[in-house]
Order: sequence, then structure tokens, then C-alpha cells
Amino acid sequence: MNRSTNPEAIEVGVVGLGLMGSSIVVSLLMAGHKVKAVAPISADMQQVRGRILGHLEECREARLLDEHPYPYEKNLAITEDYNTLVNCVLVFECVIEDLRIKAAVYNKIAVVVQSDAVIASNTSAIAITTLQSLVPNPERFLGIHWAEPAYATRFMEITCGDKTCMSYAEWVFELAHRWGKEPTLLRKDIRGFITNRLMYAVYREIMHLVEAGRISMEDADKAFRYDAGSWMTFMGVFRRMDYCGLADWATILKNILPTLSNESRVPHVMQQMVDDNARGTQNLKGLYPYSSEEAKEWEEAFAVFNKEIFRLAALYPSSRKEPVKQSA
Amino acid sequence: MNRSTNPEAIEVGVVGLGLMGSSIVVSLLMAGHKVKAVAPISADMQQVRGRILGHLEECREARLLDEHPYPYEKNLAITEDYNTLVNCVLVFECVIEDLRIKAAVYNKIAVVVQSDAVIASNTSAIAITTLQSLVPNPERFLGIHWAEPAYATRFMEITCGDKTCMSYAEWVFELAHRWGKEPTLLRKDIRGFITNRLMYAVYREIMHLVEAGRISMEDADKAFRYDAGSWMTFMGVFRRMDYCGLADWATILKNILPTLSNESRVPHVMQQMVDDNARGTQNLKGLYPYSSEEAKEWEEAFAVFNKEIFRLAALYPSSRKEPVKQSA
Repeated sequence: MNRSTNPEAIEVGVVGLGLMGSSIVVSLLMAGHKVKAVAPISADMQQVRGRILGHLEECREARLLDEHPYPYEKNLAITEDYNTLVNCVLVFECVIEDLRIKAAVYNKIAVVVQSDAVIASNTSAIAITTLQSLVPNPERFLGIHWAEPAYATRFMEITCGDKTCMSYAEWVFELAHRWGKEPTLLRKDIRGFITNRLMYAVYREIMHLVEAGRISMEDADKAFRYDAGSWMTFMGVFRRMDYCGLADWATILKNILPTLSNESRVPHVMQQMVDDNARGTQNLKGLYPYSSEEAKEWEEAFAVFNKEIFRLAALYPSSRKEPVKQSA
Repeated sequence: MNRSTNPEAIEVGVVGLGLMGSSIVVSLLMAGHKVKAVAPISADMQQVRGRILGHLEECREARLLDEHPYPYEKNLAITEDYNTLVNCVLVFECVIEDLRIKAAVYNKIAVVVQSDAVIASNTSAIAITTLQSLVPNPERFLGIHWAEPAYATRFMEITCGDKTCMSYAEWVFELAHRWGKEPTLLRKDIRGFITNRLMYAVYREIMHLVEAGRISMEDADKAFRYDAGSWMTFMGVFRRMDYCGLADWATILKNILPTLSNESRVPHVMQQMVDDNARGTQNLKGLYPYSSEEAKEWEEAFAVFNKEIFRLAALYPSSRKEPVKQSA
């Protein structure tokens, strides 16, 4: 495909300006794109500009941006009018995980944009193949899954549905490097994508041990923070195996795999949380107890941590340099 | 129990002075202990002092130590003579994962130490209850599982066997905080302890996806480095759930759990690695390709990263402040 991968030459749209949508706008502005930001909910219009400028200012303070936010800000238009998307070659949908609402949004985007524009969903819950059936041009539809905060994480999963044309996915893959991402490209939809799926394997085992009274949640968190957390950002799981020498792993896998949980029902503790309308730090009801000060402390501390780990991750060998492709 | 938890008042022993044993000695010296280091293999005697002093010097350079290594060094005795352990109230066994060798070592320790001394194994492969059957005083035997490098990681799993007396485990738990650890205390032996077990749940799922050609190892490593790696060190898995709000998790668990791998056989790719005598960066044969320069680069970069993440982890709320105990 002969599409530009120079962000300054590419106008993009973002539809849905909640926390995640705003943070995606920031990342795209920082990369140099002109961004048309569309608020499908009028109420969002009020705070969006302030929130986006606030993030840009934070990034400047954290030295993720060299310049004053102003030059970025002038590339941003915020509106409720879908017609401003007319020249956007890539439009990000970031609305809630509701099929009916997404369908309406796709329809409004599709009638405005040019025939070669790509639509991308930030869904983390619905299969891309399912969403694809809602758009008139499914070959130009794909998933682009960001991690929060979008402007200070390197993670990105680009996922094709059954009908996605690979050349569009490959163009987005190239472009994503210009956004400072280390993207993965999933040629076929997997339920839960990669990262969710792997973490759910952990949750299954951990909940099993917690329910059996073998470990506490606090212990599990410590084990992750101080063991896995001491190498995860640096090398991931397979390179870790290489680093430790491989032979022991096969022996231990042989012993441990047959003892792992194969549970398929929702763990009791999670069902209880849902029944209690627990929303964690958001409503001070969660797996751990929180005062409102504590919830605020966690949020503020995480904002700082995130920028530090982002910088730390960047110091180490980029996976782009690595030649291995084990499978396609 | 009325035992001191002031490292300066406690003499400890370390038996087995390979890479891990040496690194444990460094951590104990830094905490202020007098350390008797016993080399069961004469060949180890040659390099041990240099290696330990090298680590101390590195720690000083990385500002994990304020002072010159000298005051620490004078608390260290290195010997082949088990009789020097006579006044040690805690002896760490760090020899290879071989039952026969461990039994011989325990016997040599037990005949020398006082009747109230505790013996701790750094095993990550053998059940504590099994090892416990090899010592004359099983109630004073437990597992203390360190992560490498022992002096620059906060991870520690303290594990009881069936016969371990809890008061000794609790004393070690308190003491471990003086070593700069964030220990977990497992009251009952679990095969694979906590951290290994949880990571093996990941390996099972990931290998399944790789073998099915759905993802590449490189993609899996990216997903971990840039997604899980962006919060793991900060909050662990359960607090992460609280932070993100909990309700979505129950829905996604319900959808994904039944689709996860329940495989119990060793994945083909791991068996292949063992058959090929692949030892990763150690012999330049692994899941990824390595030149000897690359293997060296990974090792050096990891040594730097490890000190940085150690410092970063310490900036954030200590789990000691958290009051929750979900289970015992």
C-alpha cells in the first residue's frame, strides 16, 4: 500500500471523548497528526479541551514533550459535528462497549469519510469480526487496542477481523511506530486478544488458590510486584526463559501443568464484587479497602509511576530490532 | 517468640556459594548481619570473595549502599569448615536441587548449630515438606525463596512445610523486612510456590496460542512488556482490578475462562529446546537467536534495569501499610 506513514501528512479522527478517547487524542497530537475529535455526547464537550491540554502540559512537565503544548493544540478541533471527519483517513472509535451504540457511530462515520478511510475500534470486549459486520466496508475495519494512558504507554494491539484487508493493518502497524508504540499485529481475531487472555489465565489460577485459602490476594500482589515486576518490563516471558536457561522450565512445566486450575466458572469473589456494585477505587468498594484519600493517592502515584516506567522501558532493546518471527 | 530481629545482633550462615548463594550473602551483609559463608565445593572458594566484593561495590555505585564496602566485608568469613556455623541462629542452604546433596548438607549443618537454630532452603523445585523429612528438627526448617539478584530485588517467599513451627516462620518474616524484602508467608507448601505457579498458568495459555499459530513469541513478549509491564511493579494483579473498576472483569472472565487452555502435557517447543540442549543466553541457543555480544548486552542491560526497577518499586506504597488479609 502506498499510504503515507508521516503523521504530519495524515488527518485522523477520534469519536468518543471519555477518559480513553481524550488520552488517545493526546497521543495522536503528540505524534504530529491533525486531529478531529468528535463528541457523540454533548456533555463531554465541556471538559474535553481542558482535559486534553492538561495531559499535554503533564507530558511537557514529564519531558515526554519538548515544546509548549500550543503547537499541538492548534492541530486539534473538538466538535459534535461528524462532518469534520471528511478528510480523515483513519478514524478511531472509542465509545462504550455497546453494539447498538457502536453501530450508530460507525454509520455516522461511514457516510462522511472518503472511500479509502479506515475505521478502528478501541474495543477490548467485542470481537472485531462482530463489529466488522456493522460497517459498510469491512475490509477497512480493524481493532486498535490502546492501554491507558494512551500517550504514556508503548502497548498497542492491532487486530484484524475475518474480513480486514491485511494491507490496511500493515499500514496502521507502521504508523503505530510513529506514535511511539511497540505494536503487535494479530492477523486473526482471538477472543480476549493477547494480553487480556494471558492475564485471565493468571486470574483463573490465582482465584483458585485464593478461594482454596492457600494464598491471600495481598501475597499474590506482592509476588507479582516484586518477582514478575522485577523483569517483566525489561524482557517479557519468553526472553526471560532464555535468560534463565531453558532446561528447568520443561521439568517444572511437566510437574505443575497437571496441577493447575481448569475452572471455567466465574470465581465467587468476583461475582460477589459485581453483586455488591463494587467499582474498586472508583467508588471505594473493592478487593482492598480504600478511603477517598487513599484512592486519590493511588491514582496520583500511578500517574507518576506510569511516566517513569514508560521512560525506563524505552531505555532497553527495542523489540523492533529483534528478527525472530516464530509464527504468523 | 522472643528472638531478636536486629540483624546486627544475629549471626547467620550461608551454605553454597554459587551465583545465588553469593548474592544472598551480599544481601545479608548489607542488612548488617555477621555472615559465615560455607563453600561445600572447594573450587568455589577461589572466586567467591571477589564476586561478593564486586557486588558490594556495584551496590555502592548504584547507591543502594551509602558506605564503602569495607565495613560490610569485615563481617564476612568464607570457609569450607562447617564448624564456623556454631553460633549461627539461621542458616541458608543454597546448593543444587539434588535431594541427596541437600540431605548431606543438612546433616553437616545440624550437627554443628545450637538446638534453636533455623535451617532455610532456597529451593524453587522441591517441596519444603519433602526437604523437611531430611533434617533432625523439622519444626525449625522452612523455605526462603529469593529472587536473583538477591541484594536488588524485594521478592521473597517464606514457605512452611507440614511440620514447620509457625513462630519460626513469623520471626523470619519480620527479619526479612530488615533485609529490604516485601516477603510473603505461605503457611502451607504449594507446589511451585506462588510466583512460579502463576507464571506457569501464563505459559500454558501462551504456549497453546503459539503452537496454534495464533500469536508469535515476540508478540507475547511485547504484550507483557508494554501492557502488564506498565503496571505490574506498581500494583500487582488484584489492586489493578480495583484500579480499573471491577464489573467488566466478571463479564470477561465468564466469556474467556471456558476458552482457556487446559493442556497438561509439556509444550512441544519446550521439549524441543530441552532435546536440543538449549540453554538460552547461556549457550546462545534459545527461543530467540543470540550472538555472544547480544547475550552479553542482555546481561549487562538487565543488571542496570534491575537496580532501576528496584528503586522505582520502592517509591510506591509499601504493601506493609495495607491492612487486608483475605485468607490465612
